[in-house]
Amino acid sequence: MRVITLLTDFGMKDSYVGVMKGVILRINPEATVIDLCHEVAPQDILGAAFILKSSYRYFSDGTIHVVVVDPGVGSGRRVVCLRTSRYFFLAPDNGVLTLILQNEKIGEMVEVANGKYFLGEVSQTFHGRDIFAPVAAHLSKGVNLTELGPRISQAPLDSKHLKGQIKQVEIPRVNLRDDGNIEGEVIYIDRFGNLITNIARSDWEELKEKFPHYAVRILVGGKEISRVNKSYAETEPGELLAIFGSSNNLEISLSQGNAHQALGIGLGGKVVVEML
Amino acid sequence: MRVITLLTDFGMKDSYVGVMKGVILRINPEATVIDLCHEVAPQDILGAAFILKSSYRYFSDGTIHVVVVDPGVGSGRRVVCLRTSRYFFLAPDNGVLTLILQNEKIGEMVEVANGKYFLGEVSQTFHGRDIFAPVAAHLSKGVNLTELGPRISQAPLDSKHLKGQIKQVEIPRVNLRDDGNIEGEVIYIDRFGNLITNIARSDWEELKEKFPHYAVRILVGGKEISRVNKSYAETEPGELLAIFGSSNNLEISLSQGNAHQALGIGLGGKVVVEML
Amino acid sequence: MRVITLLTDFGMKDSYVGVMKGVILRINPEATVIDLCHEVAPQDILGAAFILKSSYRYFSDGTIHVVVVDPGVGSGRRVVCLRTSRYFFLAPDNGVLTLILQNEKIGEMVEVANGKYFLGEVSQTFHGRDIFAPVAAHLSKGVNLTELGPRISQAPLDSKHLKGQIKQVEIPRVNLRDDGNIEGEVIYIDRFGNLITNIARSDWEELKEKFPHYAVRILVGGKEISRVNKSYAETEPGELLAIFGSSNNLEISLSQGNAHQALGIGLGGKVVVEML
Repeated sequence: MRVITLLTDFGMKDSYVGVMKGVILRINPEATVIDLCHEVAPQDILGAAFILKSSYRYFSDGTIHVVVVDPGVGSGRRVVCLRTSRYFFLAPDNGVLTLILQNEKIGEMVEVANGKYFLGEVSQTFHGRDIFAPVAAHLSKGVNLTELGPRISQAPLDSKHLKGQIKQVEIPRVNLRDDGNIEGEVIYIDRFGNLITNIARSDWEELKEKFPHYAVRILVGGKEISRVNKSYAETEPGELLAIFGSSNNLEISLSQGNAHQALGIGLGGKVVVEML
Repeated sequence: MRVITLLTDFGMKDSYVGVMKGVILRINPEATVIDLCHEVAPQDILGAAFILKSSYRYFSDGTIHVVVVDPGVGSGRRVVCLRTSRYFFLAPDNGVLTLILQNEKIGEMVEVANGKYFLGEVSQTFHGRDIFAPVAAHLSKGVNLTELGPRISQAPLDSKHLKGQIKQVEIPRVNLRDDGNIEGEVIYIDRFGNLITNIARSDWEELKEKFPHYAVRILVGGKEISRVNKSYAETEPGELLAIFGSSNNLEISLSQGNAHQALGIGLGGKVVVEML
Repeated sequence: MRVITLLTDFGMKDSYVGVMKGVILRINPEATVIDLCHEVAPQDILGAAFILKSSYRYFSDGTIHVVVVDPGVGSGRRVVCLRTSRYFFLAPDNGVLTLILQNEKIGEMVEVANGKYFLGEVSQTFHGRDIFAPVAAHLSKGVNLTELGPRISQAPLDSKHLKGQIKQVEIPRVNLRDDGNIEGEVIYIDRFGNLITNIARSDWEELKEKFPHYAVRILVGGKEISRVNKSYAETEPGELLAIFGSSNNLEISLSQGNAHQALGIGLGGKVVVEML
């Protein structure tokens, strides 16, 4: 048994995901395929990177995480496969692995090029079916990374040496203001309308250390929030709240409601944390 | 092999459901996880209760039904686990099990409290991942209910003794009018726009017994229906019809169309069954 | 292990699909159930036929493909089961298998009628649960086709002899104009807004043979496209393109955008391929 996860922007309207599973099970009937998410906005590389980062480490050792958010399908963009201490990652080389590369120590990294592990006929439009699914299935059967194609780098692949070896996209970083306060932005909006920011728990803890006896004020969409909650339940239904959510990033939520709709704030919307 | 079903309001837009499956398979690689439904409206406890009631009994003996529709996550609300003669139910103690409790004889009922069966770190916002998934996985491996936490009641747990032991929500009941007729309401609307009411087949049979030689008239959204169908096919495309659907409740449908849209009737909409 | 695929118009809003899986696993705990697609537009037989045709052959030999797009549920319409050299197909006899019948050689074809393989109680509204799921599960356990019900025809079932044996729907055909050019139409729109036409790669190759030194002009929604791409990537973001997609039909796409929205063209929209 080997777990393969699929993270795509294919949606569920068509049979693209079902067909990928068909290809996988035809090659390895013992594989267990899990839908990580298929509703990434079409071609949203950053959204996929965030979902992958928040999710991958909850899976068993040896899980093969496959990402097919691939606006460059059919172009010369490479397909890459990484092995870290616990997982495999298979993805187009377009930056979807950026956040993983910051967290994981890479053991091996290859360019996927060996057509022996692809479907017999490779289309120019659906590599999920013709390349990613069969390669993942072969990996799950124990094929070695180095059989998939040439090593990308011989050097130890820590984040310092990765530059130029694999594509990375720019992640919106929090802005530390001169007065010591933090300006972040919304990088993901979930089904409940929670506005997930790029402000990490560590940013917040640093700020609290610098201003130990100060009160907090969080500014978002013209509203103010005066504390950081430990749970949704501390706040009355219908009230705005700020909380470090399941991804350890600061989230703006509306208790039993939808903050995204209520505030009219979208991706890139500013969130400021001030100590007063 | 043990089947675990998941019924949540997480939707498919994010990776919340995928992550729950990752946690389950990491603990029990042999578990089979089935999506019962993830599109319960956010925090709609009654909707979840209805879906669970209509669905649970089609699964194998020993299936573990997990419900995570949990507006109170992070508050003091308890998590409960029940064993009935055929199934396990794991859910927040917020009323989502109300309809199950009316049907099933409970063998055992505990409060889930033993952190040994939770993920190492428990967030205040995502108990689906941190509590429900790992507990379900451990149950599927054979852990006893009593290891999960203290028994909720020693008494035989029939519906008479349940009051105060576990939270129950008020279910809209049909209203028997003085003239003997029935007033019900829409309690669920499905993908096809079928308006599912709280009028059970038994209510209808009782009414027919009381008025054996009468004709029926069903009033909904200003329209009249003059019989109860046995199948959709008895009615011409585009016509309204009333039928006892797959959940054994009276449904108002539009043959090959969408009754919800055509009538402009939503949840709580009145449906009257009269004998003339 | 036997793979069962499900193709329905049930959507994911309700538990209809989950319940079908429960029924299948209760009868055959070893079955692997794959969602081919559940977002077929309600009662869209042609859409289901197209998805099935594009998808079925990527699955393992012996896969049981189940289609429940079934506006005639509860009417006298038959349920049919076919065996071809590699697959089983189980569907209502309403035309959803039309495109399969053009490609596959049928070994055996029966009317599903033996109630022994149905759920104990068969509703008039949910045959997916009461008939299709249990029959598929029994098939996956090795039950012979002929145990399911009477053979539909003794004759060799090639496309010539199928007429009248099983229902077929009319598929929009490309129109060959007097000047040799092709007029096709949009028969499917996918999640990305790609407009998939009924113009097959073979139509295009025939046209090119007839007019070997001509230039191509593709007309759609008042726009012109002057070549057929090999990949999306040959075209700048935001530009319209024509390409033979993963189903080998001509598709109109907007590079990194949504052609359906940009052109305002829907199902049935005209696409003309001219040689100049």
